[in-house]
Parts: sequence; structure tokens; C-alpha cells
Amino acid sequence: MSVTAAKGFRAAGVAAGLKSTGAPDVALVVNDGPNDAAAAVFTSNRCKANPVLWSERAISDGRLRAVVLNSGGANCYTGAEGFQVTHATAEEVARLNALSPLDVLVCSTGLIGLPLPQDRLLAGVADATTRLTATGGGDAAEAIRTTDSVSKQASVTSPHGWSVGGMAKGAGMLAPALATMLVVITTDALVDGPGLDSALRAATRVTFDRLDSDGCQSTNDTVALMSSGASGLAPDPVEFTAAVTAVCHDLAQQLLADAEGSEHDIAIEVRGAVSEEEAVEVGRSVARSNLFKAAVFGKDPNWGRILASVGTTSATFDPADLDVAMNDVWVCRKSTPAESADGIDLSGRKVGVVIDLKAGPATATVWTNDLTHAYVHENSAYSS
Amino acid sequence: MSVTAAKGFRAAGVAAGLKSTGAPDVALVVNDGPNDAAAAVFTSNRCKANPVLWSERAISDGRLRAVVLNSGGANCYTGAEGFQVTHATAEEVARLNALSPLDVLVCSTGLIGLPLPQDRLLAGVADATTRLTATGGGDAAEAIRTTDSVSKQASVTSPHGWSVGGMAKGAGMLAPALATMLVVITTDALVDGPGLDSALRAATRVTFDRLDSDGCQSTNDTVALMSSGASGLAPDPVEFTAAVTAVCHDLAQQLLADAEGSEHDIAIEVRGAVSEEEAVEVGRSVARSNLFKAAVFGKDPNWGRILASVGTTSATFDPADLDVAMNDVWVCRKSTPAESADGIDLSGRKVGVVIDLKAGPATATVWTNDLTHAYVHENSAYSS
Repeated sequence: MSVTAAKGFRAAGVAAGLKSTGAPDVALVVNDGPNDAAAAVFTSNRCKANPVLWSERAISDGRLRAVVLNSGGANCYTGAEGFQVTHATAEEVARLNALSPLDVLVCSTGLIGLPLPQDRLLAGVADATTRLTATGGGDAAEAIRTTDSVSKQASVTSPHGWSVGGMAKGAGMLAPALATMLVVITTDALVDGPGLDSALRAATRVTFDRLDSDGCQSTNDTVALMSSGASGLAPDPVEFTAAVTAVCHDLAQQLLADAEGSEHDIAIEVRGAVSEEEAVEVGRSVARSNLFKAAVFGKDPNWGRILASVGTTSATFDPADLDVAMNDVWVCRKSTPAESADGIDLSGRKVGVVIDLKAGPATATVWTNDLTHAYVHENSAYSS
Repeated sequence: MSVTAAKGFRAAGVAAGLKSTGAPDVALVVNDGPNDAAAAVFTSNRCKANPVLWSERAISDGRLRAVVLNSGGANCYTGAEGFQVTHATAEEVARLNALSPLDVLVCSTGLIGLPLPQDRLLAGVADATTRLTATGGGDAAEAIRTTDSVSKQASVTSPHGWSVGGMAKGAGMLAPALATMLVVITTDALVDGPGLDSALRAATRVTFDRLDSDGCQSTNDTVALMSSGASGLAPDPVEFTAAVTAVCHDLAQQLLADAEGSEHDIAIEVRGAVSEEEAVEVGRSVARSNLFKAAVFGKDPNWGRILASVGTTSATFDPADLDVAMNDVWVCRKSTPAESADGIDLSGRKVGVVIDLKAGPATATVWTNDLTHAYVHENSAYSS
């Protein structure tokens, strides 16, 4: 499991006192090679945190030797001083592990606008370095939790002998172009930078980018993929992309299941769109309807709120010819009531919505959560 | 006050049994002239309710003699049968009041996807017709309430002797390109169709269109403006537009104050934008951040969530040079923490946010509410 499922990686997670609770808050993942190829994708939010600004630079040559992550502070909107903390963190990882600072990706998560105490963070880096082991993936996954109720890990082993493993954190601010999350994926397959980049982009496009728990887009999102090449095996690119996608999908579903205060996981499948982009646009509009999400929390199959959301998009469809199903009951055909919604049981955690636009061949699924009292509670009390 | 503040109008509100509670649910406003010029704007949602489909046709010649409104059912996604109910309603108002059906605007509000009982609605129309009076505006305003806790009315009288009055309903699904609301505005000033249309569009653009309580856009929104000309006075166009805007602003603020479950009214002023459109885009992004809105509910001045929303827009600004104030405290200057947020008291209902993009001369204010337990409760229990 996790980032040490693949050979050639060591990891650790330690408590550095960044969290007032004393829980683990610094994680380190080191790639012992022989390969050092890597790829990463970042938040599309234009207000980027300091570690993202650093990491975009670090990954630009397609090579990484380590990823250092902290919870307990996002180091976002903390000014030039905050960037200096990120820089010092990369320098310290490099110094202690005999690497170049620009081969160190830095990730932070927590509150925005608060300074991150550099002395504690660097002491944590030193502590983590001494604890690095080939079985430390679980400790690392533990140390990146914020409001996550559980740590998230996944792995796939190819019948050809190579592996892909990963860890993720994220429970709120989950929205497009990456949820609010940090993800580190490792593989011992031998893949070069461009191969990793193309596999990672293909995988995130249909997994993390389709997750829209609360419509709020973070400033810190990072997904990194590193290859150690320690298996000595060069994978088939299609099989490799499928394996990375499987790990991303597994982690994305774990994020969904652990979203702050959620009681339902809602899959919104849009069919019959003229393009995948339009299918995603329609799915996302429903995923962002507070009224629809509150109705699901109330176990109310209120499909009118689905159509009201579809109508706000610019996708191609005939407003008088839409079909909608909830949990396989086609409550709406040709934009008029069809099968009775009375029998729809929304007591389970999984809810399925299908919207048929009848306009083309494309399809896409967007995942979201319901809007609950607990979501409001967690997010109104988070920093106070 | 209300739609009978202006001379030349009669109105009534009656209980027709559309609401299970027995509360008033049918309203009628008749223009006795001599003028019959009118204008109306409708939801930009592409999934439009049957009454909107009818009313777009009715207003196309710039003339109206009556508006009939019902609560207790939106008549949306009810198919050809539903359109027939709307058509029959207009016919009945016309027959009983000696008008042309195409001079009758029809508005409905309530749940989507449920048939509206035609016999009850037509009986309500007959009852309302017999009760029409020149002081019936209050009864009409009462009859269009859904989850509104109070009826909404406003009026302005010009020193020149003409008046503008209006009523509104709306408490949820409040979002752009009109909130979920029905509004009827009347005037005894003598204004032609194009003059009414231009005043109405100018007024709604800076009032109802800037209200974004929960990001959910309705299928039934209608704002109608009718001129009876009964004062015999032709107003100055600028003064008339200002009066219509004042009535719309007053009604919009009443909608905001009564939004479902809300505890705060939040004004988001964006300054320094290169255009009004960009200022609105930035304001709306913050108005739609569930995280920010939940923080306000929790009385937590979490300005990081404001910046995270600003960063999702395509507006022109330097991410490293943003200023943000909450209740006049500049918590963020040049995208770094400035004055302490500790002293910000969010216990009052009114909350003010100012965002300075420092990119241009344009400004706009968008209004929203906080995200509360009560919002989730009302909207999870609404139809069950």
C-alpha cells in the first residue's frame, strides 16, 4: 500500500508541532532511484500557495528525488517570508539527503494566511529523514491528514512485476481542476518524464478533476508522480496509464467518501452530450447545486432541482427532451414526470443520477457529496 | 405600498387550495389604464417553466392588462398538459375581465415537476376577480409567498406626482440573472413599452441580477413592469429609471433579508476591476463559496477563503497584489496579512467585504447570505 508499495522509495511521517493537537504533521518521501523522472500537476487557482510556486519550478525539468509535505498550515498568502520558509524546507531536505533543492517538491496544507513556523518545520524534516524506511508509507499518509477522518492509500501491482502506489489527503474544498488535496504517487516501473506526465494528466483528468464535493477550489493542490525504476521494467504505456488511473480513482473515491460532513456519495452520469466537455459542464452544474445537494441529504428525490441546474449550462440539448434517472428510476422522460419517485430509497450512502441530453455520443461522470448540517458545522468552526 | 400604490391598478389575493395549508395562493393585478404599455424580464435558465414560455409570448408586443400569479406549484416540467393549464389561466382572466388572453402575464412558483390543479386555479381566478380593489396590493403580495416569512412590498412617489410600486416573492434559489422570484411593478406614470423596457433592464441589472443568495437559478423568475398612465404625467426618463431602480433595490434587499435560513446579509464590493463585468464575476465567485459562507455563519473572518475564490476567476489582477477588508478592517494588503482579524465582530446581520483588484476603475457590489444549518434544514425538508 501507499507510496512505499513500489520499490525504491522510503518514507516517514513525524509530529513536528505544527498542529496544536500534537498529531503527525510532516511527511517525507524519498526516491532512491536509479530513475529520477517525475511529473506533477497543480491547482488551476490563480491564487497559488508558496509551496506551489516553488514546486512548479522544481518539476520543470521532469526530475524529482523527494517530496516533503506538511499539514498544519497552507503557507498561502504569507508573503515573501512564506516563500522563504518553503525554500528553506527544500534546502534542508536536500542537505540532509544529499540532493539538489530543485529536486525536492514541497506541499503544504492547512489554513490560509497564517505563517508556518520555520524552525519546527525544519526540525520535523530532520526527524523524518532519520526515520525514512521502505515501509514508512503508512506513517507518511498519516502525517498529511487535516480534517481527514482516515488516511488514504492505494496501490496496484502489474502482473508484469511493477507497482504503482499512492497516498492522498483531502476532505474539504474539493473542487475542479483538482480537489483540495495533496497526492503523492510512486512507481518502480521505468518511465521517463514525458511518459509520467502523459499518464498523470490522463489519470487526473477522469478522476480528481471530476470530483466536485463543494465547488471550492484550493490554493495548494498538488499531485506528484515519481518513478524510481527500481523494478528495472519498462511498462506498456497503455497499461501504465491504466494503473496510474486506477490508483487515482481509488484515492479519489476515498476522498469522496471522507468529504467533510457528507452522508452521501453522488455519482452524476451525463449521457448523450455532444462532447465530453459539455457532459462535464452539465454534471458539474448539478454537483454545485446547493438545493439539489440539500435535497439528497434530506433523502428527497427532488429531480426538479436537477433540471433547474442543467438549464443553467450552455451545453447542447433540447429543454423539452431531457431524461433523468435517480437510482435507476427514470423519474423524468422528455422533460415531463415519468416513473414515480415515491419508491426511490436514498437511505444508502451511494446515490446515482443519470441525465440523458440526447444530443450526441459523449458521456462523463462527476462525483459530489450532499450538503449537510455537519458540512456547515465543520466549515463554520474550522479556524475558530 | 405595493402594486396598488400607483393609480389605475386593482389587485386581489385569495386562497384557492393550491397550498395544502389553506394560505392565500392566487394573486391578480389588473391595469385599468388608460395606458397598457408593459415590459418584463425572465429567468435566463434554459429550462423554463410553462408560465414563462407563455409570458414571453404575451409580453412580445409590449402590452399587458393583467398579471395572474400563483404559489403552491411552479408548473415547470409538467409537459404539454402543464402548458395547457397556463393557457387556460390566461384565458379565464381574459374572459372574466374582458381582456385579450395575450395581454395576461402568468407567473407560478412552488415545486417543480408537480401538476397544478387547473380547476382550483381557475376557481381562484374567478374569486380574485370579484375581489379586485384599488387597495388590494397587500393581499396580492400575501398570496405569492412560498417560504417567504413576510410579504415584500415597496413604493416610491415622485415629487412630480407619479408613483412606482411593487411586490416580490422569493426566499430561496436566489441567483443570478434574476433570483428565484416573482416581481410585479406598477406605475401610473405615462411611459411607452420601450421606455419601460429600458428602465426595467437598467434597474434589474444592478439589483436583482446582483443578488446571489445560494447560486441556484430558478426556472420561473419573472419581473414585470406595467404602466397605467393614470397620473397623466410623462416622467423624465432618468428620474423614472431611478425610481424603478429604487423600488427594485428595496425589494431585492427584502429578498436578501428573508433568504431561507440566513443569519447574515453579505455585501461584496469589488473595486479596481478593469470592467463592471469582471467586478461582478469576482463578487459572484465569493458569493458562491460555500466555505466562505459557512465561515461567516460561524462569525469567523476567514479571509483566505475570499482570496481562494478570487483566484478561480479570469478577471484581471495580480495575485500577489490583492487587498481585502472585512467590516472595514483591511485584513489583507498586497496579498499578505495586514491588520489583525481578531477584532472583527461578525455578530451583526450585515457583513461588508471589500476586494480591491487594483487593475482598473470599475466597481460592483454583489449581495449574498451565509450558509447555515437552517438553510440545509429548510432545503432538505422542503418537499418531503
